[in-house]
Amino acid sequence: MGGDNGPAVTLPAALSFLEHHLDAEVLLVGQQEVLEVELSSLRPPPSARLRIVHASEVVLMDDPIEVALRKKKDSSMRVGATLVKDGAADGFVSAGNTGALMAVSRYVLKTLPGIDRPAIATAIPNEKGGGTTVLDLGANADCEALHLLQFGQMASMMASAIEGNPNPSVGLLNIGEEAIKGNEVVKQAGELLRNSSLNFHGNVEGNDIFTGTADIVVCDGFVGNVTLKSTEGLAKMIAGMIHEEFSRSIFTKLLALLALPVLNRFRHRMDHRRYNGAVLLGLRGLVVKSHGSADAHAFEWALKRAFDAARNKMVARIAAAFEQHGQINGGAQPEAAEPAVSGEPRAASA
Amino acid sequence: MGGDNGPAVTLPAALSFLEHHLDAEVLLVGQQEVLEVELSSLRPPPSARLRIVHASEVVLMDDPIEVALRKKKDSSMRVGATLVKDGAADGFVSAGNTGALMAVSRYVLKTLPGIDRPAIATAIPNEKGGGTTVLDLGANADCEALHLLQFGQMASMMASAIEGNPNPSVGLLNIGEEAIKGNEVVKQAGELLRNSSLNFHGNVEGNDIFTGTADIVVCDGFVGNVTLKSTEGLAKMIAGMIHEEFSRSIFTKLLALLALPVLNRFRHRMDHRRYNGAVLLGLRGLVVKSHGSADAHAFEWALKRAFDAARNKMVARIAAAFEQHGQINGGAQPEAAEPAVSGEPRAASA
Repeated sequence: MGGDNGPAVTLPAALSFLEHHLDAEVLLVGQQEVLEVELSSLRPPPSARLRIVHASEVVLMDDPIEVALRKKKDSSMRVGATLVKDGAADGFVSAGNTGALMAVSRYVLKTLPGIDRPAIATAIPNEKGGGTTVLDLGANADCEALHLLQFGQMASMMASAIEGNPNPSVGLLNIGEEAIKGNEVVKQAGELLRNSSLNFHGNVEGNDIFTGTADIVVCDGFVGNVTLKSTEGLAKMIAGMIHEEFSRSIFTKLLALLALPVLNRFRHRMDHRRYNGAVLLGLRGLVVKSHGSADAHAFEWALKRAFDAARNKMVARIAAAFEQHGQINGGAQPEAAEPAVSGEPRAASA
Repeated sequence: MGGDNGPAVTLPAALSFLEHHLDAEVLLVGQQEVLEVELSSLRPPPSARLRIVHASEVVLMDDPIEVALRKKKDSSMRVGATLVKDGAADGFVSAGNTGALMAVSRYVLKTLPGIDRPAIATAIPNEKGGGTTVLDLGANADCEALHLLQFGQMASMMASAIEGNPNPSVGLLNIGEEAIKGNEVVKQAGELLRNSSLNFHGNVEGNDIFTGTADIVVCDGFVGNVTLKSTEGLAKMIAGMIHEEFSRSIFTKLLALLALPVLNRFRHRMDHRRYNGAVLLGLRGLVVKSHGSADAHAFEWALKRAFDAARNKMVARIAAAFEQHGQINGGAQPEAAEPAVSGEPRAASA
């Protein structure tokens, strides 16, 4: 139900996803009537691997977190997260309100033992042709050094689970490469990371996200969010300029037509839709956040990301790693993890 | 002497600047012999408005701040700042080590009465065709709310002095538009800004820098530095991709030739060199920092920025504004400001 476009985007995405993933099931979580009407207009006809789970309420994009948490107890968001908690789904994908999704997921699923703060992680395309995983992107505006260490640990497990990278490098986002740079929290985090078992690269700077200097870049949610939105803003401005310059006259439009293969290849490489799907890391279950303005193609990538994470038992691996490293993470006694992973991945989509 | 290229860049820039500004004088600060050799190879011949001020030492790009401050007492950086302090120059432009430049300038010139922390401000091109002034870009990794308020006040005076904008709008960089968003420092800064006499727009997000939502965007030096470097990194990656796509084959190279006017216009709009020259705000004198990798064209823009700021008595205006607002800024008794501004602007360039 979520995102700027609701089922008009999520349903076609789910159908296409099912076509490409023959071993997957999708549970559509939302208002049954709305979903049925939308489904009836779509082809191919609903697959047997597609099922509707009714939820009477919808968390709106501008609902305060309190409303999502306390008032709307039968929201598609809440029901979706509960499906993961109950083991009825292996992962949950939503394009809804980020703050509400994090709060509801955290309330329903709880954090993994040893993890103080869940974080939002996404891959940002880099010059090497891959993606740099950056976190936190906005869940934690204020962070302590220990949180940044935990972000690095969680993202390392995610990278090895989803991308098959056995020893991903971790960079600490800072304003200079030298260890003495940065604010107090970052300096302390550098100490913790250097003394950890992670493949710590050292400090990285903003531009290193795009050169791909480290596989993972950790920062607090304030810096991460501003960085993500700034670079999205710049990319949009540049795309607009290219469009403007090629629309100036008959001659430039003709040129654009001639250059279409070149421009399309460029557009494909710049296509952030392939990187849609931020993971809410640190929960006792898998939750993936799609961009609110995602189209069907982008939302399908978010489903695919959830599918890959579920199939590779990402949550269980993070839980296991934190049981091993319980000492580092403040010494809290780790409880047994209960990740919702079964044989055949099922994704709930709200 | 500073920057990646030293006099090979700064001297041609100074000569070209003098050609375009017939009422300006330039003092070249640095090792006399080196500068004379470099000058002798240049045309047009040195103008009568160009003079060398000898300084025996050079602060290197990787010198620690302590070395710049305590060891190299006859550095071009120190001598340049002293020229401003003594009123022999109306402004000082350097492409050297940012941390050292800030430390030396602060030591030699001191901060203006009522200002706790100097900040680095620059204009970043936006969709409206103008520039969004962003600060702090790295002088203060940790900031209190009062500092952010002062950044807004200083930048407002700068915008009205240099750009003739009588009532520039100020945005507070945050992770959401609502007043309740952000970390503690930012929330408090929002309160201070709302209650100030500034034209406060409210919170802005990263992308607003590029849409030009507010004329000025304030943030702490950590966030500002990471944002600036991230967007520089992305711009570089995109430029590289465009180049790659047009270099793929004979056909695409031919296309690039045909599209040269379009690509050049795009390149001109994207040309960050026109925005070179960050101002060190809050000092009792004018200091402008050029990008270390600036070429002569870019360095000339930094000289021009210093010239405009000096001609418009920017430092005196900021000082006057802070005398008026002494109460807001913590109630410190404002001393008389002594900005180094005289009739005919002279720029010292190291």
